[in-house]
Amino acid sequence: MIIRQIRVTPVAFRDPPLLNAAGVHEPWALRTIVEVVTDEGLTGLGETYGDLGHLGKVRECAQALVGLGVHETNTMYARIGAIVGDVVGDAHGLTGAGTREKSVDRVFSPFEVACLDIRGKTAGVPVVDLLGGRVRDAVPYSAYLFYKWAGHPDQEPDRFGAALDEAGIVEQAALLIKEYGFRSIKLKGGVFPPDQEIAAIRALHAAFPSVPLRLDPNAAWTVETSIRVGRELEGTLQYLEDPTADISRMAEVAAAVPMPLATNMCVVTPEHFPPAMASRAIGVLLLDHHYWGGLVRSSHIAAMCQAFGLSLSMHSNSHLGISLAAMTHLAAATPNLTFACDTHTPWQDGQDVVKPGALRFIEGAVPVPAGPGLGVELDRDALAVMNEQYEKCGIVARDDTTYMQRFEPDFSARRPRW
Amino acid sequence: MIIRQIRVTPVAFRDPPLLNAAGVHEPWALRTIVEVVTDEGLTGLGETYGDLGHLGKVRECAQALVGLGVHETNTMYARIGAIVGDVVGDAHGLTGAGTREKSVDRVFSPFEVACLDIRGKTAGVPVVDLLGGRVRDAVPYSAYLFYKWAGHPDQEPDRFGAALDEAGIVEQAALLIKEYGFRSIKLKGGVFPPDQEIAAIRALHAAFPSVPLRLDPNAAWTVETSIRVGRELEGTLQYLEDPTADISRMAEVAAAVPMPLATNMCVVTPEHFPPAMASRAIGVLLLDHHYWGGLVRSSHIAAMCQAFGLSLSMHSNSHLGISLAAMTHLAAATPNLTFACDTHTPWQDGQDVVKPGALRFIEGAVPVPAGPGLGVELDRDALAVMNEQYEKCGIVARDDTTYMQRFEPDFSARRPRW
Ligand SMILES: [Mg+2]
Ligand SMILES: [Mg+2]
Repeated sequence: MIIRQIRVTPVAFRDPPLLNAAGVHEPWALRTIVEVVTDEGLTGLGETYGDLGHLGKVRECAQALVGLGVHETNTMYARIGAIVGDVVGDAHGLTGAGTREKSVDRVFSPFEVACLDIRGKTAGVPVVDLLGGRVRDAVPYSAYLFYKWAGHPDQEPDRFGAALDEAGIVEQAALLIKEYGFRSIKLKGGVFPPDQEIAAIRALHAAFPSVPLRLDPNAAWTVETSIRVGRELEGTLQYLEDPTADISRMAEVAAAVPMPLATNMCVVTPEHFPPAMASRAIGVLLLDHHYWGGLVRSSHIAAMCQAFGLSLSMHSNSHLGISLAAMTHLAAATPNLTFACDTHTPWQDGQDVVKPGALRFIEGAVPVPAGPGLGVELDRDALAVMNEQYEKCGIVARDDTTYMQRFEPDFSARRPRW
Repeated sequence: MIIRQIRVTPVAFRDPPLLNAAGVHEPWALRTIVEVVTDEGLTGLGETYGDLGHLGKVRECAQALVGLGVHETNTMYARIGAIVGDVVGDAHGLTGAGTREKSVDRVFSPFEVACLDIRGKTAGVPVVDLLGGRVRDAVPYSAYLFYKWAGHPDQEPDRFGAALDEAGIVEQAALLIKEYGFRSIKLKGGVFPPDQEIAAIRALHAAFPSVPLRLDPNAAWTVETSIRVGRELEGTLQYLEDPTADISRMAEVAAAVPMPLATNMCVVTPEHFPPAMASRAIGVLLLDHHYWGGLVRSSHIAAMCQAFGLSLSMHSNSHLGISLAAMTHLAAATPNLTFACDTHTPWQDGQDVVKPGALRFIEGAVPVPAGPGLGVELDRDALAVMNEQYEKCGIVARDDTTYMQRFEPDFSARRPRW
C-alpha cells in the first residue's frame, strides 16, 4: 500500500467568542484536513491545526511522503524531521512552548492518523484495534465550559448566550450536560481575577455536587496565587490544570496544594519528561495526539506516564470529527487514561467535515466508531464549504489576543497576570 | 480473526557448558514454543522461557485467550494479569529480580509476538511494519563470548573447545567472527577474578582494536571492584554491563567510571525506571521483548529511553529462531537501538525449530526476514524432536548453580563474589 497522493485542505468553521487567558476566540476556527490516498485507491483521513506556518509545513511534507508505504511511519517521521527545520509553534502559546521535536510531532500527526485509518480499513478493523484494542466501549468526555460573550461583537448573539459570572457558567454547564450528558466539568479560567473563578467553581460544585470539576487558567497565575487558589479549592477540584507556567514553578505549586496538577503546557514534548519527573511538577498529563506525534507515539507517552505514576486525561483545541474519532480510538485503547477527556465538540455546534452518524455522545461518552479505520467518512460538500469559508474569512492564524484588543484595547495577554 | 486454539510445546536443545556468575549452562537449554491458531486457519509463532513454573503459567493463560481477537492485546494482557497472581521469576536471577509486573510481561510476550505474526501475515507485511517500519535493513548482533569448558564433563568436547583464559577467549572471538562476521564483541564475565577478565578484555582489544567491546559480569562485583575495573578498562569498553547489583549501587559505580553502564538486571520492568532515572544509574538499557511484555511494549520502553537520554542495546538468553526473528523485527523498527544486539545464536549451532533459510548472518547482521509476519516457518519435525528431547532430558528449570556444584562442590553463586 503505497501513498500515491496527499490532499491538504485548510478549512474554517464558525467559533463562538470563548474567553481565555490569551484573549477571545475569533469568529472562525481553522483546521487542516489531510487525505492520504494509496495506489489501491483507499483514502485515510487526518486533521491538524490550520495556522498558516503549520499548514505550509504540512503541505511541504505531504509531497515528501508520496511513494512511501503506509506502514513506514519511522521513515515518514525522519523525512518530516528533515523538512521541519525550525520551531513552528502556536503564537497563542496555549499548548506551551514550541520545540523542534514538538514541531515535527505536530506535522507528523495527521499523516500518521491517516495511515492508521488506511491500515484499519485494509485489515477490516477499527483504529482502536491497531493500538491494542479497546479497554472501554465508549470514551467519557467532559463539559468544557468557557466564559463567553453573548455573541461576537458584530454578530447576533449565539445560542449559548453569555457566561460572564458564576450564574452564567452554571447555566452553560446545565445546557451542555442536558445536550451531551457529560459527567465531568472543566472550566477554562485565566479570564477573571482568581476570586471570581473560585466562586464559579464553588457554584458549579453546589449545582453539581457529584460531578468532578477541573479549572484551567492557562498559566495566568503566579506561584503564590496558584497556591492560594489551590488551597481554597481543596475538596472541589479533581485536578488543577496549568495554574502557572514552567516546570519549576508548577513543582513549587504541586508541593503546596492538596490536589494533583495537570498540564498541557509545561510537559508537551518527550524532552520535558525528565525535568518534570525529577521535580514532581505534575500528577496528570493531558495527552494530545496532535502535538505528541500521532496515536502510536501518544501510546508511548501513556506507557511512560504509567511507569512514572502519572494519571492521564486528554487535551483539546477546537477540532472537527476526524480528530474526535482519532481521540476516541486512542482513549479507548489506553488503559490508564481514566479521566474524562476534553473536547471542544459542543462549540462546533454541528458543523463538521465528516458525515453525520458515526460520532455521537451517550451520557457524555463517545462510543468507539465501529470502523473499519477511524470509522468516519469525509463529507466532500461540507469540506468544500468549509474550505471556501477558510478562503473568505481572512484569518490565517489563530490570534485571540489581537481580536480581543479590537474590543478591549488595553487587554494584555501577559502571563502571569494575577 | 479470532483465536481458536493455542498450542504450547516445551522444547530442549543441546547447549555447551557456558560459564557465568551463576554457574554453568546445563547440557540442555529449554524453551517454550507457542502457536496461536485463528478461526481462519492462520498460525502465529511465539517463543519464551521453558522453566516449568513459567511453562505452567503460559499453558494456563493460553486457555484464557481462546476466543479473543488477535488485535485485543489489552484484553489479553488484563486476562493474563489476572491469572499470573504471583511472581514467577528465574531462579538464576540473571535477568534481575522478578516482580509481579515482570511476570505478567514474561507470560504475555509469546502470545503478543504470535498475534503480530498473524497480523503481519493477514496484512501481507513483515512484523517490522507493524512496529513503525524498518530504519535498518539488517540488525547488527555482537559476538557473545563465554568462558567455557571443552565440553560437558560426561561428553565429548564440543567443536568450540575450551576458553578458560584470554588466549581461549581471543580464539573463540576469532571463530565466531569468522563464521558470523560480527563487528562487536561481548564477554560474559563474573566467572574468574576480575583481573583475569580485565586481561581478557585487553587481549581482545589488542587482537581486534577497532571492534567495540563489552563486559558483563552479571553483578558479581562489589561497588569498589566495579569502580576499579571500570577505571582500569577506560578506553577499551563501549559499555560495562551490570558490574554490580541494584540501582543504588549501579548509580555509585556510574558516577565513578568513565564508560556508560548497561543493564538487563537492575532495570527490568517499568517500575524500575523512576529510581534509575533519578539516580542516573544507567546509560544503556538492554531491551528484551521476552520480559518487557512483547514487541509493542518494548517499543514503548524504547521511546522512554529516548526521552530520558538512554542508549539501547538488546539482551539475549539462549533462544531459537522464532525469537531471533522477533528480536530482529523489533530492532529494525527501533531508531534509537543503535548498539549491536546480543544473541546466543552461535551456541545453538544450527539447531532450530524454524525451517532454514529465513534467518542468516551477513557481516554480523541479520537481514530483516521479508515476511509476511515474522517471516519464519515452524519445522514440525524439528519441533517434535526437540519436544522429545525436552521429555527425556530430565531438566525442567534452568539451574546453572546446581549443575556446576556437581563438578565443583564448593562453588557458590553468591553475588557480589569479588
Ligand atoms: Mg489546558
Ligand atoms: Mg547481561
